[in-house]
Amino acid sequence: MTEAAASAATLDAVDAWWRAANYLSAGQIYLLDNPLLREALAPAHLKPRLLGHWGTTPGLNFLYAHLNRAIVAHDVSVLYVAGPGHGGPGLVANAWLDGTYSEVYPAIGQDADGMRRLFKQFSFPGGIPSHVAPETPGSIHEGGELGYSLAHAFGAAFDNPGLIVACVVGDGEAETGPLATSWHANKFLNPVHDGAVLPILHLNGYKIAGPTVLARIPRAELAALMTGYGYEPFFVEGDDPRAMHRLMADTLDTVLARIRAIQAEARSAGFGGRPRWPMIVLRSPKGWTGPREVDGKPNEGTWRAHQVPIGAMERDGHLALLDTWLRSYAPAELFDEAGAPRAALRALAPSGTRRMSANPSANGGALLRDLVLPDPAQFALDVGAPGALRAESTRVQGQYLREVMRANMHNFRLFSPDETTSNRWDAVLEVSQRCSVAEILPGDEHIAADGRVMEMLSEHQCQGWLEGYLLSGRHGMFSCYEAFIHIVDSMVNQHAKWLKAAAAIAWRRPVASLNYLLSSHVWRQDHNGASHQDPGFIDHVLNKKAEIVRVYLPPDANTLLAVTDHCLRSRNRINVIVAGKQPAEQWLDMAAASAHCARGIGVWEWAGSAGAHEPDAVLACAGDVPTLEALAAAQLLYEHFADLKLRVINVVDLMTLQPPHAHPHGLPDPAFDALFTVDKPVVFAYHGYPALIHRLTYRRSNHANLHVHGFREEGSTTTPFDMTVLNGIDRFRLFAAVVERVPALAPARAAARQFVAARLDAHRRHIEQYGIDLPEILAWRWKGAGP
Amino acid sequence: MTEAAASAATLDAVDAWWRAANYLSAGQIYLLDNPLLREALAPAHLKPRLLGHWGTTPGLNFLYAHLNRAIVAHDVSVLYVAGPGHGGPGLVANAWLDGTYSEVYPAIGQDADGMRRLFKQFSFPGGIPSHVAPETPGSIHEGGELGYSLAHAFGAAFDNPGLIVACVVGDGEAETGPLATSWHANKFLNPVHDGAVLPILHLNGYKIAGPTVLARIPRAELAALMTGYGYEPFFVEGDDPRAMHRLMADTLDTVLARIRAIQAEARSAGFGGRPRWPMIVLRSPKGWTGPREVDGKPNEGTWRAHQVPIGAMERDGHLALLDTWLRSYAPAELFDEAGAPRAALRALAPSGTRRMSANPSANGGALLRDLVLPDPAQFALDVGAPGALRAESTRVQGQYLREVMRANMHNFRLFSPDETTSNRWDAVLEVSQRCSVAEILPGDEHIAADGRVMEMLSEHQCQGWLEGYLLSGRHGMFSCYEAFIHIVDSMVNQHAKWLKAAAAIAWRRPVASLNYLLSSHVWRQDHNGASHQDPGFIDHVLNKKAEIVRVYLPPDANTLLAVTDHCLRSRNRINVIVAGKQPAEQWLDMAAASAHCARGIGVWEWAGSAGAHEPDAVLACAGDVPTLEALAAAQLLYEHFADLKLRVINVVDLMTLQPPHAHPHGLPDPAFDALFTVDKPVVFAYHGYPALIHRLTYRRSNHANLHVHGFREEGSTTTPFDMTVLNGIDRFRLFAAVVERVPALAPARAAARQFVAARLDAHRRHIEQYGIDLPEILAWRWKGAGP
Repeated sequence: MTEAAASAATLDAVDAWWRAANYLSAGQIYLLDNPLLREALAPAHLKPRLLGHWGTTPGLNFLYAHLNRAIVAHDVSVLYVAGPGHGGPGLVANAWLDGTYSEVYPAIGQDADGMRRLFKQFSFPGGIPSHVAPETPGSIHEGGELGYSLAHAFGAAFDNPGLIVACVVGDGEAETGPLATSWHANKFLNPVHDGAVLPILHLNGYKIAGPTVLARIPRAELAALMTGYGYEPFFVEGDDPRAMHRLMADTLDTVLARIRAIQAEARSAGFGGRPRWPMIVLRSPKGWTGPREVDGKPNEGTWRAHQVPIGAMERDGHLALLDTWLRSYAPAELFDEAGAPRAALRALAPSGTRRMSANPSANGGALLRDLVLPDPAQFALDVGAPGALRAESTRVQGQYLREVMRANMHNFRLFSPDETTSNRWDAVLEVSQRCSVAEILPGDEHIAADGRVMEMLSEHQCQGWLEGYLLSGRHGMFSCYEAFIHIVDSMVNQHAKWLKAAAAIAWRRPVASLNYLLSSHVWRQDHNGASHQDPGFIDHVLNKKAEIVRVYLPPDANTLLAVTDHCLRSRNRINVIVAGKQPAEQWLDMAAASAHCARGIGVWEWAGSAGAHEPDAVLACAGDVPTLEALAAAQLLYEHFADLKLRVINVVDLMTLQPPHAHPHGLPDPAFDALFTVDKPVVFAYHGYPALIHRLTYRRSNHANLHVHGFREEGSTTTPFDMTVLNGIDRFRLFAAVVERVPALAPARAAARQFVAARLDAHRRHIEQYGIDLPEILAWRWKGAGP
Repeated sequence: MTEAAASAATLDAVDAWWRAANYLSAGQIYLLDNPLLREALAPAHLKPRLLGHWGTTPGLNFLYAHLNRAIVAHDVSVLYVAGPGHGGPGLVANAWLDGTYSEVYPAIGQDADGMRRLFKQFSFPGGIPSHVAPETPGSIHEGGELGYSLAHAFGAAFDNPGLIVACVVGDGEAETGPLATSWHANKFLNPVHDGAVLPILHLNGYKIAGPTVLARIPRAELAALMTGYGYEPFFVEGDDPRAMHRLMADTLDTVLARIRAIQAEARSAGFGGRPRWPMIVLRSPKGWTGPREVDGKPNEGTWRAHQVPIGAMERDGHLALLDTWLRSYAPAELFDEAGAPRAALRALAPSGTRRMSANPSANGGALLRDLVLPDPAQFALDVGAPGALRAESTRVQGQYLREVMRANMHNFRLFSPDETTSNRWDAVLEVSQRCSVAEILPGDEHIAADGRVMEMLSEHQCQGWLEGYLLSGRHGMFSCYEAFIHIVDSMVNQHAKWLKAAAAIAWRRPVASLNYLLSSHVWRQDHNGASHQDPGFIDHVLNKKAEIVRVYLPPDANTLLAVTDHCLRSRNRINVIVAGKQPAEQWLDMAAASAHCARGIGVWEWAGSAGAHEPDAVLACAGDVPTLEALAAAQLLYEHFADLKLRVINVVDLMTLQPPHAHPHGLPDPAFDALFTVDKPVVFAYHGYPALIHRLTYRRSNHANLHVHGFREEGSTTTPFDMTVLNGIDRFRLFAAVVERVPALAPARAAARQFVAARLDAHRRHIEQYGIDLPEILAWRWKGAGP
């Protein structure tokens, strides 16, 4: 420890800050008026409905007060992540004490009236939510859904060598799966160029109604668990404030010195193996300093303190109990005549951006630098004639990303649950390795302690890291098997809500978008079968606010390049890109790809036979495999019906299908009608669940004539073409769908049905014998739009 | 240890079994013919595409062989859960060696031709998937998506005192969040009346492309981690088969004796505190016994052994390498002339239902007993006039569930992430407590070591436990906050896929349905705000196969009772029930509720004014809050327009809206048209995202006149009524929506708009001042259908 132990006077100041924060927290839950209790507390001063969560708050305030002292004493920059987001009133109270709150919300000044407004707005219509939220200065973490604090903390620490992230993990949250695995993030944090994470496991013993798991195992077992996770645990346990202040101050001095020593060693001598980072276990009573007993039942230290400790204020004695409780903090000692925090108290806190409520990393958009992006055309495939070339589209994307990585080695990372190579981004490994600060063995390939490719077999961890990395002002991309991105559905919900709320807050600056590549998609699961087949993430994100979400289905490598470039330039979005990794037909040269992606939807003139004429039918497609099948169907149609006027439409940007009032990318009705006609049959081959296309287009003029083929939850381990057959999206069925619906082809229907049945029968017999698709399917090539 | 150590001869038999299983596993990946290698291996014997996962398989086979010996030696019943589901060929191989495979699939006999078929079908069109799957005898766990093996294992062990679940956890899977927290399930397993779980952490060192986290931490750290999780770890490490056989046999003898001792003590002396259960760490090479080197690169013991160790069979030397590898198992020593396993090998295995492939708990439907169900009418509310009574609907459901619990104390459990009380199921705690075998303190309430209410703050754990409990033949229900059920979206996908596949397998019997109560729903989040608001799980499950999923939105307590009773009787389904927990209007008496739920949708004659007439408009509703707002809107309409002929429709079973070809509950078009008319405006107040209703109804005649109000991702911490206002589903907007669309009301529109604007303005002003809804809203009562 390099600093002298905190003096008794300093600890008095810490205690005063803590009392002030506790008072302000309780005030937010209870008081509509009389914020400084200068009048006798009366029913009219109370909020008509008491809402909020007290239980976790005093512990959060205790830590905040102590970190204030330590930041100054150790001259460090600390970001505070409050896992127990239920402690919203606490973080708001501290930000107000810091002065930051009044700076960003001038209507809520550091005075009595400001305090009154601060109290009223909490959990009040038109006010602020009860959790730590985007509205809370200093926060990058909404704690409403539990489990992601530690992943967010590590994400913020990556490439942030000057930052210490103090991450409070509630013992309720600690029971979740994502949190339980995120302790292992210490195997991915490099002390040379990353910051530090100081996890603080807060055992307050109870969840809503029952005890927590980690509070009910012996201390030795908990110490073993933290040791096993790779940390050096320090215990701060008790309920006597005076003793706890001394213990916490000394412990923080010790752990910050430990962190400094680890970093100094690694930064002077170079990376020398995974450090054993310190962590703190804080065991303190739930609802600490709150009422001991309410209605004859213990309150402080029990689950009864979880939300509002004293409810039913009309009951005998409740108002007096509240009054006694609130006055126990001695507000007159804490706030001056004007209602501002007294100088002694303010002296404790760091100033400027060292205030945790003003830490720059908590408003990452303000730190964000644009990526240096290469011209995607450099990586474009020379496709020649449409369909002449076959290539792995995501491999081409990987070459582009390699250069993105090379040009942005301090603010760009890739994240994946062990699928970087599988999804064909190998080229990236030429520039930066997989990250691991754990043991590396001779025989290992592409793995290094300073790697920027973050792979852990936990979609939760990848998502949480990336969110933390983005919200603290950097860029990244997440590559995932399509089916398993559902694992983070709920995290995506929360991130989308964060982006929506943040966009409405003037002082929050836009952050880089959360970009997904979903590959190893539903149509190509030859190795894995049914468990790996689910294209429903698109449906899931479409329930989010339209301004937040984008879904792209580039049909080939060059369109994938154009879309990726666009996504990496965007801000405040969730961009979902779905693209295959298997060798597949390439359609558009780079110029055509860029133009097509800029429109998002368009007629592929070269693939159609209608030209400028009104078509007999429209064949639309979205997604790489559906595009292939649609073009093969078109070719069959031309072979059978030389006079058929067919229009082929490809959709890259799914949002174009919606009406413009539903999404900013939505095509106006006249433009939609010009593409899809108002009365001709439209056969639509879609990558995912067919209902989605209906959901997007049900208000369009020609919707009654729209027939969507897509994934129907059929198929398992089988051939690529058989997957399309089992789900009725194969070229023969698309061919048949057109023939059945174009009136002029009525005479040909019987023969067409026979043709289709014969081909499907041949297919079935072949795959059952050989296990691979018919040579005619494997070798199929686009021959152009017929005579 | 009560048994003598395994003899050398026995270990020879174990080794022979292991080699046989390894041979059969490799054969499945490679061979289309020549299964016993009686001819020289030729290219024509190979599968045209090599698919499958070898890497994890030898380890799974090693464990299976050793467990076979131990089952006989210790006379125990063991269910084998293979976390690394990629080891599909291994489990299939063992089931074939057991004889079970040929019993359930007679076409695949225990002879050369059967072996040929066994090989061919693997990862082959029309065959079986590459993972352990419903098709695999002895399995309850699909390992395609990783993370749930241990939760499934504990679920199967609950209330199964005679069962030991050997659960192999892959070191890839061990990185996932759900798995990382599921180790803690040992705090919920009671040695008196539950079975045992023997976790076996299999460190084979690599995932698809990189090393695993747990294989790269020091042994002492791993031991600390397992100790911290509450286990006694036993290490079996090495690569020499002979040494490993001895070590594994001795270790299994030790841990099974340990399990027996724990159970004997608890079952004679009574529960005496949480035992420290044993677990095993098996560290063995990935692709053990496979080719050492392929193309000059190490293979066995590296990630290169993950899938097919020798690919590109046309390359020089590959065929010979495969031949050498396969013959290294000496198939002629293992299989007799006919191709059947030799007697010496068969002698190792247990017989009948002691075979792990035939363990009855792996085909839970065959063990399933119907629940003893009380008459829900016993718990019905006497509602009086519609809307006269207010009550918490889920509290009434809790009273019913209390009696279900009382009558089924050995095969029924409730699961929840700490929300049993919050969701108002308290009554259940009168009959059985929350379960914990960890420390219980004085002051704790409703918690006991033999509790049947399973609460851990992990939706993953709850879902995994319940799945394991159901698949092993029992019943249960999961209560969850509506928004956070998205946390298990992906688990639901996998369970739905399991049910779909299992339904097509003759020997698998139907299991009890997976029943959800989703409460604390989107419309009532006064304490929690935006993070707790998401009704999209309904959208998610609707992408599953129609025969699997049901969604119910009972509008009040009595309909909730009827629906719950129905769900608890159903089989092989995923039933989603969404119902509020806050005091709310009650509408139907029990008889009417039962009749309404049996239809799933119907006209509420008493609420309408159209009677037998064709209505001027239809007001439809689904969900408790939308029903309230729709009825309040109806009342407003009657007050303003005495002559208006309005029809009120309530939807309990959302599936009725779909066409019958899309869902078995779907209303035929004539019935739908009779309800919704073919040309009158329909205003539909829906609980969730409006697009869902359009998705279900877009093919209906009157769809163009359907106007859906629902959740639009607006609102946070605010009043209940304000949530409806912010999302445009409040009574005034529904009133306006009807007025705007009924031609006869055109002259009244200007006044109606003024009225609505004034009421909303009054609402806004009131809540901003007082934080609670207007008295007129809070006190609103249904007055009937007008004059």
